[in-house]
Amino acid sequence: MFDKVLIANRGEIALRVLRACRELGIRTVVVHSTVDADSAAVRLADETVQIGPAASRRSYLNAAAIVEAARQTGAQAVHPGYGFLSEDADFAEICADNGLVFVGPPPHVMAALADKSTARALMQRAGLPLPQGSVQTISTLAHALEVADAIGYPVIVKAAAGGGGRGMTVVGSAAELPRAYARTRAAAQVAFGDDRVYLERYLTDARHVEVQVLCDGHGNGVHLGTRDCSVQRRHQKLVEEAPAPGLAESTLQTLAELALRGVLDVGFTGAGTVEFLVDAADGIHFLEINSRIQVEHPVTEMVTGIDVVHEQLSIATGAPLRCRQSDVRLTGVAVECRVNVEDPERDFAPTPGRLDRFQPPGGPFTRVDTHGRVGYRVGPDYDSLLAKVVVWAPDRQLALDRLDRALAEFDIAGPGVRTTIPFVRRVLTDQAFRAGRHTTGLVDRLLAADATGAVAPPSPARPVDPGPTVPTPAAAVPAAPTD
Amino acid sequence: MFDKVLIANRGEIALRVLRACRELGIRTVVVHSTVDADSAAVRLADETVQIGPAASRRSYLNAAAIVEAARQTGAQAVHPGYGFLSEDADFAEICADNGLVFVGPPPHVMAALADKSTARALMQRAGLPLPQGSVQTISTLAHALEVADAIGYPVIVKAAAGGGGRGMTVVGSAAELPRAYARTRAAAQVAFGDDRVYLERYLTDARHVEVQVLCDGHGNGVHLGTRDCSVQRRHQKLVEEAPAPGLAESTLQTLAELALRGVLDVGFTGAGTVEFLVDAADGIHFLEINSRIQVEHPVTEMVTGIDVVHEQLSIATGAPLRCRQSDVRLTGVAVECRVNVEDPERDFAPTPGRLDRFQPPGGPFTRVDTHGRVGYRVGPDYDSLLAKVVVWAPDRQLALDRLDRALAEFDIAGPGVRTTIPFVRRVLTDQAFRAGRHTTGLVDRLLAADATGAVAPPSPARPVDPGPTVPTPAAAVPAAPTD
Repeated sequence: MFDKVLIANRGEIALRVLRACRELGIRTVVVHSTVDADSAAVRLADETVQIGPAASRRSYLNAAAIVEAARQTGAQAVHPGYGFLSEDADFAEICADNGLVFVGPPPHVMAALADKSTARALMQRAGLPLPQGSVQTISTLAHALEVADAIGYPVIVKAAAGGGGRGMTVVGSAAELPRAYARTRAAAQVAFGDDRVYLERYLTDARHVEVQVLCDGHGNGVHLGTRDCSVQRRHQKLVEEAPAPGLAESTLQTLAELALRGVLDVGFTGAGTVEFLVDAADGIHFLEINSRIQVEHPVTEMVTGIDVVHEQLSIATGAPLRCRQSDVRLTGVAVECRVNVEDPERDFAPTPGRLDRFQPPGGPFTRVDTHGRVGYRVGPDYDSLLAKVVVWAPDRQLALDRLDRALAEFDIAGPGVRTTIPFVRRVLTDQAFRAGRHTTGLVDRLLAADATGAVAPPSPARPVDPGPTVPTPAAAVPAAPTD
Repeated sequence: MFDKVLIANRGEIALRVLRACRELGIRTVVVHSTVDADSAAVRLADETVQIGPAASRRSYLNAAAIVEAARQTGAQAVHPGYGFLSEDADFAEICADNGLVFVGPPPHVMAALADKSTARALMQRAGLPLPQGSVQTISTLAHALEVADAIGYPVIVKAAAGGGGRGMTVVGSAAELPRAYARTRAAAQVAFGDDRVYLERYLTDARHVEVQVLCDGHGNGVHLGTRDCSVQRRHQKLVEEAPAPGLAESTLQTLAELALRGVLDVGFTGAGTVEFLVDAADGIHFLEINSRIQVEHPVTEMVTGIDVVHEQLSIATGAPLRCRQSDVRLTGVAVECRVNVEDPERDFAPTPGRLDRFQPPGGPFTRVDTHGRVGYRVGPDYDSLLAKVVVWAPDRQLALDRLDRALAEFDIAGPGVRTTIPFVRRVLTDQAFRAGRHTTGLVDRLLAADATGAVAPPSPARPVDPGPTVPTPAAAVPAAPTD
C-alpha cells in the first residue's frame, strides 16, 4: 500500500478519502485553496499545502501546483475525488510523467470516456443499447434538426465534454432547437473549452439507474449492484438508493452485466459508474460512464459492506481485485440524500452563509459524510453540497422512514442559509416515490404542483402514464461540478 | 404498534429510543428533570413533561411522576432505557396497574433476575454453569470466610441487588475479607436498600462475553450472537465488540444456546442480555442477566442488521417475534467504545463542564449515538457517558483501525473536560487486545504500566499466563448506573 497519498479535492469528498487513507495507515497530504485553509480535511490531514486562491482554475484545477505539492511532500499517489480534475486525462498523464500514481483508470481510457460522444460509440461497439440519437457529434444546426426530426421530440442536446448532468439542454420542439443548440455549444465552449455536442432522444418517464463497477489492471472486474438516482433537480441527483427499486431482478442483472461488459471492453481500471436510463417498458439505454468515485457511492458501500475508496487505493497499487463476483452480496436497502445549501423555492439557488448551528443526525444505521461544523462558512466559490445523509435498513420502507427520521433531527441554521432537507422530506412522502415507481420527472412534478398551488400533488408514476412532462429547460451548464 | 410511547430516561439512550419510535411512526413523550430541559431528546420529542429536579430519586426514579406524565399525555407504553427504573419490578408493576405497557419482561421475571442471587439459582436449575460460590446469600462474616476458604481466593463479594458492575468488591485474601464484606453490605444498603450479598470465586484472566437474546410472549426466542466486553474500568465496560473474538466457534455457539435456554426457562420476554465469564481454559461461568436494553446493543445491531429497540417495541405490543433463529446472520465485526467525560489519569473521575467544541466523527461504517452538542453542559448529576462511537468492518483488524480513525477525528473540548478517548485509543494499540486475547485485567494492566512508569507495557494475554493480576479493589458502588 502507499505510504502517502495527496488528496486533490475539497469538501466532504476530501474528508471521505482522508478517512479511507487513515484506516489503511496511509499518510495524507491535503491541498487546498486559501478559503479552505480551515476546512475539515485540512484540519485532519497529516500535511497540507495551499495551492492557490478560491477560484478553482487557480487551485483545485491547477495541475501544476498539485503536482508540485506532491513532489514537495513526497506523496506517491494522487486521489482526485469527484469533479475538478477527477476525469481529466491530461492531469492523469501529467501525474504519470511526474512519477505519481493517479488513482483512476489509464489516461487514454479516461480520455475516451470523458468524451461522451466517444464513450457512446465505444459502448455501442461493446453491445450496450444506446438511446436513439446522433452517432457522431453534430456540427451544424441543419444536421441537428434533421436528427431530431428523425428520432422525434423531446430531444436532449449534450456537450461531448460534459457529463454528470452538466452541459445538457432538453428541447421540446423544433422551434426551440436553434436557440438550445446554439446556447449549449456556447456554454460548453465556456465551461469545457470544447463546443462539440451530440443529440439524443430525451426519455420521459424514465429512471436513472447506474451500476458501480470495480476493475483491476489484470483484466478482472466485479459489479457492486445498481443504484437508482432518478430524483434529480436540473439533472443533478438529490436522492439515491441501492439497489434500484421497482425493477425486475432480471433487469437489474442485465444492467449489471452490460455495465461490466462495457468497462472491461475498454480496459477500464479502478472504480467506475455506468449510467443508464430505464424507460417505462424496461428498455435499457446507456448514458455515460464516470471514471471516478461517485458522490452516491455510500449507498453501495452500505448494501455490500465494501469500502469503495479502499478498493480504489488497492487497485491503484497494481494489486488484483480482492473480491470475486460471488463474494459480493447485496443486503437490505440504503438511501442517501444530499443536503445542499440552496433554496428549493428559488430554483435551488445557492444560499451561502455561516453555520451558527450544525448538528447532524446519528444513531442506528445512519451515516453522515460532511465537512460542515458549527462556525463553518459555506462560501459561494464551490458547489453547494454540504452533507450526505445515508441510511440502511432491511427493507425500503423502513429505510425511507429512517432517512426521514434522520433528516428531521438535522439541525442546520445560519443567516440566509437554506437547505434541501425540507424538499427531500417531501420527496420521501410522495406516493410514486414510496412505491418505487418514480421517474426523473419527479422533482419537476413536485415543483409544478407548488407553482400551480396544488395542495396534494398527483402521484402518477411509472408504469402509469403521467402524460407529457417535459421539464422546463434548465441552465445549460449548472455550476455544481458533481454527478 | 403503539401510537404514543413515554421514554423514561435521559442522555443518549433517550435519544436512541426516540429515534426508534420516530422510525416506527410512534409519537414520543420524553420526561425530564429540570437540568435536562434543553437536552437532545427533549428537543426532538413530540411532547415533554418535566417530572422533578436533578436528583434522580425525585425525577428519573420517581415512578409516581412518570406514571402521572403518561396519564396526562395518553401514552400507552413506557420505555425505561437502561439504568434508573429499567430493572425495577415494582415500577413495571405500577405501570401495569395503571394500564401502561412496560417495555420489558413481566414484573415477576424482572424481580427474579434483579436479585442476582436468585438469578444464579434459577440459571443453575436451567443447567447453566456457575462460578464457584455461595448458593444462597451470606448473612454472617463467619459464613463468608468459610465459603471463601472453600473456593479459594481471590473472591468477589456481590450485592444481591447489584448487577451491571455495581455493588461488588474483589477480595485477594482472608485478611481483606472482613472489611470488604462489611463495606459491600453497607454500601449495598445505601445504594439499593438491600444489604444481602453473595460470594463467588473471582476469575482472573477471564473474558466477559455476553449474549443478546430476544423473546416474545409466545414462548419463542432467538439469540443475536455474542459480545465481548472485557475492556472494563471499575467493572464498567469501555470497549465492546460483536462477535466475541478469539474464541472457538463451538464456544460461541454453546454460550448462545445456554443463554437462550436460561431466559426461556424463566419466561423472559423482550430484549435481554445473559452475561458470562469465559476462563483461560474456555470454561463458561454464568454471571447475571440484564432484563433491558444494554448500552452496547449497537454492536449487535451492526452485525445483524436488526434494530433491537424496534424489536423491543414490537414484542411489547404482544406480537410474536418477527424473525427465526435461521434468519439471524452475523456479518463482519462491530466495535463500540464509550466516550465518557472523565479523566483516565485520575481513576476515571468525572470531569463535568461545558462543551465549547463538539464534532463527532462520521463517514463509512461509523455510527455515533450521543446527546452532546456544542454548548451542552455535562452536569455532575448523572453518569459520565457522553457518546458511543461504533464502527463496522468485514474483519476485526479493519474495524479496530476504523474505530481509531473515528476517535482521532472526534473533537471535544471544554474547560476542565477530559474524555476516555485517549485511553481507548491506547487500548486499540495493545498487542493482546489486537490479537483478541485480552482479559478483564487489561485496563488495570495498562494503568499499572502507567503507575510504574513502564514505557512499553508488557502484553501478556490469555492463554499466556500474565501472573497474578488482582485488580485494586474498586469503590463498592460506582456512581454510573450503566452496564
